[in-house]
This record gives sequence, C-alpha cells and structure tokens, in this order.
Amino acid sequence: MSNTTEPFPRVNGVLTVGGVPVDRLAARVGGTPFFAYDRDLLSRRVAAVRAALPAEISLSYAVKANPMPAVLHHMSGEVDGFDVASAGELQKALDTTMPADRISFAGPGKTTDELVQAVAAGVTVELESAGELTRVREVGERLGIRPRVALRVNPDFSVRGSGMTLGGGAQQFGIDAEQVPAVLARLGDLDFHGFHVFAGSQNLRADSICEAQRATVDLVLKLAELVPVRYVNLGGGFGIPYSARDAALDLGPIGENLAKLVDTQLRQLDARVVIELGRYLVGEAGIYVTRVVDRKHSRGTTFLVVDGGLHHQLAASGNFGQKIRRNYPLTVATSESAVETVTVVGCLCTPLDLLGDKVELARADVGDLIAIFQAGAYGLTASPTAFLGHPSPREVLVGGTAPVSGENQCRQ
Amino acid sequence: MSNTTEPFPRVNGVLTVGGVPVDRLAARVGGTPFFAYDRDLLSRRVAAVRAALPAEISLSYAVKANPMPAVLHHMSGEVDGFDVASAGELQKALDTTMPADRISFAGPGKTTDELVQAVAAGVTVELESAGELTRVREVGERLGIRPRVALRVNPDFSVRGSGMTLGGGAQQFGIDAEQVPAVLARLGDLDFHGFHVFAGSQNLRADSICEAQRATVDLVLKLAELVPVRYVNLGGGFGIPYSARDAALDLGPIGENLAKLVDTQLRQLDARVVIELGRYLVGEAGIYVTRVVDRKHSRGTTFLVVDGGLHHQLAASGNFGQKIRRNYPLTVATSESAVETVTVVGCLCTPLDLLGDKVELARADVGDLIAIFQAGAYGLTASPTAFLGHPSPREVLVGGTAPVSGENQCRQ
Repeated sequence: MSNTTEPFPRVNGVLTVGGVPVDRLAARVGGTPFFAYDRDLLSRRVAAVRAALPAEISLSYAVKANPMPAVLHHMSGEVDGFDVASAGELQKALDTTMPADRISFAGPGKTTDELVQAVAAGVTVELESAGELTRVREVGERLGIRPRVALRVNPDFSVRGSGMTLGGGAQQFGIDAEQVPAVLARLGDLDFHGFHVFAGSQNLRADSICEAQRATVDLVLKLAELVPVRYVNLGGGFGIPYSARDAALDLGPIGENLAKLVDTQLRQLDARVVIELGRYLVGEAGIYVTRVVDRKHSRGTTFLVVDGGLHHQLAASGNFGQKIRRNYPLTVATSESAVETVTVVGCLCTPLDLLGDKVELARADVGDLIAIFQAGAYGLTASPTAFLGHPSPREVLVGGTAPVSGENQCRQ
Repeated sequence: MSNTTEPFPRVNGVLTVGGVPVDRLAARVGGTPFFAYDRDLLSRRVAAVRAALPAEISLSYAVKANPMPAVLHHMSGEVDGFDVASAGELQKALDTTMPADRISFAGPGKTTDELVQAVAAGVTVELESAGELTRVREVGERLGIRPRVALRVNPDFSVRGSGMTLGGGAQQFGIDAEQVPAVLARLGDLDFHGFHVFAGSQNLRADSICEAQRATVDLVLKLAELVPVRYVNLGGGFGIPYSARDAALDLGPIGENLAKLVDTQLRQLDARVVIELGRYLVGEAGIYVTRVVDRKHSRGTTFLVVDGGLHHQLAASGNFGQKIRRNYPLTVATSESAVETVTVVGCLCTPLDLLGDKVELARADVGDLIAIFQAGAYGLTASPTAFLGHPSPREVLVGGTAPVSGENQCRQ
C-alpha cells in the first residue's frame, strides 16, 4: 500500500498525529498503548467523499466503526446523519447535535427495550423483520408516539468483492425483497419513510459497488411503486486497504455512477438518498501506538514484544473474521534507522497475539513506540479488552486546531 | 459429543445450573444474556483431576481462563496455586486466600510496573527473556526485595495435537532451552525456584500430552544439573471438546504417565511439581444464556436472532483463533418440543455473529432461552464486549449450597 504514513508525517524522525509527535502524545495521555485519531483526517476524508459524490447524496456515518464520543461530536458537524446499531450507540449519537430525525437504527436483534428507546427518541427504526414490525407498533401504541420507520430489505442479489456479505440469499438482515409487499400491508399507522438496502461491506472494487448501487436503485424504484418513499439508504460498503496487496478504492467511478442514478432514476422519487459509511470515513484516520517492552532472539527470529496486542486491536492479529492473516501496515514511530526483519508480538500469553509477522522495520529497542495503521475503525470496540486482565487503552482525538496546511510542522 | 447437557439437568423441561432453572436465573440476574457457572462442577472437575494424577502433583489454576472474582475465591480453596498473566489478574488472585508464594506470573510482555507489583507481592515471576531478568533484578534492587523467580523455558520440542503451540522453534514465550545456562549465570541474588515449560494448549490427545510431559521432565532434569530446582511447572494443555467431532480427553494415561515420571525421575529433585490448568478446570462448568428476540424465515432458512452474540462469546462464533468454524454445542434451554433445523445468530449487525449454523434444536419462539455450552473458559473476557455498544452480560456463580447428590432436584 502506498503512502500509508503520509497522513502521519514524521518530524525529526518521529511520527506525528494531528501535528503531535507520538512520544509526546504518549506522555500526554499517560502511557501506552493508545489509539490516536486525527480530526483533520476525518474532515478531509468526508470532504473527499463529498467532492466525489453528487450533491444530492446525504452522507451518514455508521457509528459502530468508531463510537468514541469525541469522534462522534466531530462527525456530527461533518456528516448529514448517523446510523446506530444498539441503544448504547443511540445514546452516544443523541448526545451530539445530530438531529434525531437524521439518526437511523439498524440491527437484526433489537430488543423491545431498545425499540422503546428508539421510538421515544424519534429516530428512524430500520425494521429487520415482520416480527420487529409487530413489536414496534406495540411500542408506539404503548408510548403514544407514532414510530418513524424504514424497512431494511434483503435484496435478491449479492455484491461481488465484499469483505462481508450482508445481502442476498438467506439472511438474518432485513426483510426478503419478495416479502416486502406483505410487510408493507401491515404498516398500520407507522410513520413509514423508505427503504434501506445494505448488501456488503469492506469492498475495494468500485465496479462491484457501482453494480450493487444500480441493482439497489432498481429494487427501490420497484418497491416505490407500492408506497411513497421519502428515504432511500443505499448502504455503503466502501473498503480501505489493510495490506500491501490491497489497492485503495477509487471513488471516481462511484461518484459518476451515483450522479447518473440520481439523474435517471432517483430524482423522480423526491427522497433523501443516503450513503452510509463507517470504516471508510474513520479507518485510515487512526493509529494504534504501543511500546516495545522486550526485544529477544529465539532460534533465528528477533521478537519485539510490545505492551499492547490483540486485546486492543484484534483485527490486526488476523483473528477477527479474516480467512488469511496478513500484516497490517506498521512502523517504528520513534526510529528511522537501518531496516531489519522482526516479528512483533503483543504482551498476551497466546500465540494468537501476533501483530507483525516477519516485517521489515527500523531498528527498535525497549522503549521505542510501534504504530499500527488503519486503526481508526473496528479497533478498540471490536477487541476483547478484558482478555488477560490488562488495562484498557486510552483513546485520543487530536489535531484540527491549526490550519490543515500546517500539518507538517510540529505545533508545540 | 456425548452427555454435553448431563451436568446441567432439565427439571420440568427447563435446563438447570447449580439446581436453578435458567429462566429463574435470568430473572434473578436481571436479564439476559448472562454467563452461569456451576460451583459444584468446578469442584468435581478438580476432584477428578486430583483422583487421576499422583498425589505428588500440585494443581495450579490459570486465572486467564476465567478470572471472575467469585470463581477465583472458590478455586482458591480447591487448587494449590494460581497462575496469572497480568498485574490485573495478579490483583484479583491476591484478593483471595491463595498465598502469594503459590502464585506464578507468566507472560511475554510484562511491563516494569507489572514487575514492581509482582515483586512487591512476593509471587513467583516466570522470566520469559534475558531482558526481563535484567529488569526484575533492577526492580528488586529498587524495592529492596529479593525477587522470587523461575525461568520459563522454550523447549526444543513441540507437542503434536495442540490447539495452540507455545513451545518449540522460535517463540516469544520463554527462554530457548539452549540459552538457559547463560541466563542462569546472570541470576545474581535472585531467589531462583525452578523452571516452567509450557508447550501447548487445548490438546485432546492423552498420548501427545504424555509425550510432552516426558520430554519436559527430561529437559528439566538436564537443567537441574546446573542449578538446584525446587519448583517444576510442567504446564498443562488439557483440552475440552467443543464440537461433536471432539472426544473428551482421557485423564487415565496422563495420570499413569505422571506417576511413573514422579517415581523414576521427579522425586529425586525434591521439588514442587505443578500441573497448570485453566480451560480444563472451568470450561465445561459454564454456559452462556441468551434470549430469542426474533424468529424469522428467509429464503428457506429459519433464523433465531438472540440478544447475545459474538461480543460475549467470540469463540462460539468461530472467530477467535479457529481455522475452521464448528458449532459449539447448544440447546433450547426452555423447551424440549419437536426438533427443527435453525440457524442461531446474535444481535450484531455483522454476518460474523453466527452462533449455530443449521443446528437441530427444539422449537424455540421469541422469549425462549438458548444455552451455549463449554462457556466457562475464555468466554466473557475473551470477547469484544464493547462491540456495537451493547451492555455487558452478567456473570453468576451458582450451586454448591446443597449436597452434590442433590443436583437433580430443583432447590427453590
């Protein structure tokens, strides 16, 4: 992957985040390991997406990717909506200035308590099944509030190239497209807004995403013959590169495709059309920083043992959904000297805790900091933090207080 | 796997834990999902191990498998020692009545702060590298306390049949056997006790475990020519069955092998000989209980959507170290009616959240409870509890207040 470190330039040889050298940041946050996210990188990524997509598209942030409150507060001023996946995420989203009617709540296992919270908040409940529809009606009657809902549709197609498939075939997600007419007939006095179709995630192929968007729009237009549609959530699925084998997603064709879909089909609906992105907006804006606590040689291999590990950044160890383990990009943040081949392992007493398998890094000694990139999404909250009883890592959002053009200078 | 549910008998059709029906337990703990562990099953498992192994063997519990404080307090009266993997586990272990000199602290990435805590506590620090030896000496000098240490040795053999290999070849764990003489020469005035060799975990083959124990004893006897040895930790690695393909480990041959090793080799050392078990002691004593929140049909598949998921029991979803996903044993805890084939999924908005793929279960409806077995080890703490912002599950330790022979009767 090219230019991995470019968003985190080195000053005097030390990696910086938001203009702050990571060793100084370690002191500021009170120790290692920690996650650091760059506010400017978040803003710039949103700006890049907006520049590529037609103005008619609303941009929603999938909170699950990174629910750190400071990130949410920043994102609430950057995007047009939030999608949440639990009552816990809902509460965090409502603590920002994002209006409730721009918050959607999707997820296959919403409890009745969660439905109560969502209906009381006035967010859009994306119904995943006929049973959930029945329950949300009961909740609305009980509360005396007309629930605002959309139907999540399990399409009759799937998307090639997705890291994970959430649509097509038999699914726990959404209502099968062919069942939608029967479900619509049972809406009663629910405040129905539209449809959500989310077919897959972590896709690096623009052509596949375009194809899915075309099929989704066709499906929604067909469903819109049955009911007035004011809201269309086309999903997202934009991936980010995690290994040297991955090429970054090209937004250009996706923007062109969407512009065409707006012109030829979507405009006639007069609906709010949403693209919902999580990982793509935040994943590359964060790093995970951990300190070398031991350097040892065992039978021809040099090991760097760090004070972090898979309990904080599970996906980087290759143990969270990956079929094949590949090293996440990583670097010695505090050194640029001669290159050597080392294996970077976490502090846990398990061979699963592998962060860099035979990687070429600058020489690092005890006390040096290692930065693992692509750590802005599905890091801390997607990891077993209590595993082996180590403290939880800190999280910090930095940068954004000086002009973006100043990011190459140390600001202290 | 036979007799999976036998430790959790049904009363009036409802699964019980420690004599309490799980639906009543759900009410008592305040909701679902929850983990329930049975105190009697813990005691019985320890008794079974003690009955199989020679009396000369000390039994240590690896806290990492389940660090719930109530479990630790119970285990402190059952086993002879604790092994901890972090300062966090150390604190929990010290809160029990287990004497500090029966607590060992192993782990490849101990920080200097952790070494300070361990030396101050007076536990046995199992040194994983020459660098750690240097640091523990410095810590001892600073505190004016003579650190109690053992060397963890990376053997020159590995164990066939282990779920995970922690010994042999190049390893982050321990000091390569051939480096041990040089490291021993640098002990200074450290209070040296002996050696720890841990070659692998989750092994279901008694012959492999016996072979590893023989090789370990040979290695330790050889090392004992260099230094007086008062402590020998032979590791553990005893596995438990997780799927229908697994057969339970036969303790008989392991006990016979150890008895022979004691008689022919170990007795001459006059050392405390330890077998260290985590998963084997607690794994089968616990279940994870989650409630059905939706039942839906999608293109030929019946899905039960539950209020728990991989955020609580990651390993059961097949996403924690497993190369091939297999269903953990599970049952409908509140129903015994006609059997049907269903897919059980968690509440998370990800296709990874799969708990039972096309399993034969009793008919379950919304409100029924599902129990997943083999959940006593590496469940809650080995799972990404914050993932998608759901509440943490409860944990409860039950039973043991009536005679063990009463476990077939409901005690309320």
